[in-house]
Amino acid sequence: MSYFERHIFFCLNERESGKNSCAQHDAQAGFDHCKSRVRELGLADVGGVRVNKAGCLHRCAGGPVAVVYPDAIWYSYVDNSDIDEIVDKHLKNGQVVERLVLPDDVGL
Amino acid sequence: MSYFERHIFFCLNERESGKNSCAQHDAQAGFDHCKSRVRELGLADVGGVRVNKAGCLHRCAGGPVAVVYPDAIWYSYVDNSDIDEIVDKHLKNGQVVERLVLPDDVGL
Repeated sequence: MSYFERHIFFCLNERESGKNSCAQHDAQAGFDHCKSRVRELGLADVGGVRVNKAGCLHRCAGGPVAVVYPDAIWYSYVDNSDIDEIVDKHLKNGQVVERLVLPDDVGL
Repeated sequence: MSYFERHIFFCLNERESGKNSCAQHDAQAGFDHCKSRVRELGLADVGGVRVNKAGCLHRCAGGPVAVVYPDAIWYSYVDNSDIDEIVDKHLKNGQVVERLVLPDDVGL
């Protein structure tokens, strides 16, 4: 069994090259909103949900991105309503939010 | 299928409280060594291994810690030989390094 039932990692990286990166797309705000909502819903706990900062997740072209483990589902989000949907459907209930899933061919 | 076959996250966090945290135990060196070795072995690729920086993983008492997903296996390591064993056995070959696994009751 996983220590956290679902563990989401948000890339907060900024690339010095000026190429597309998550930090340019306000990834910090997405992380902050996710963390707050997970706490509000009482999901943040061992055996529950953990919202984590991460460095570059190597899929910068799709930024801002986040990945949910152990499910290994990758998301690209735009605003707080996207984050709310990921929290309410996936992190809380295990339903993948298909419309936000990052296509397999999106990399650096 | 997981975008990365194995995705390891190293906590690099330092707690301001002075309580035990991964950064106090040279987590940066563990991360750097793992990243180098994975590259040397040619494992770093889509469909392969990704070595990632992370913020606090919420299991500070066992620091320095790292977690391998999607396997959801948590490790506490001491030195580069521990990292080598995690890379060679687990990241490359999928064998869990039992002697380094973090006990379930180790938290903050």
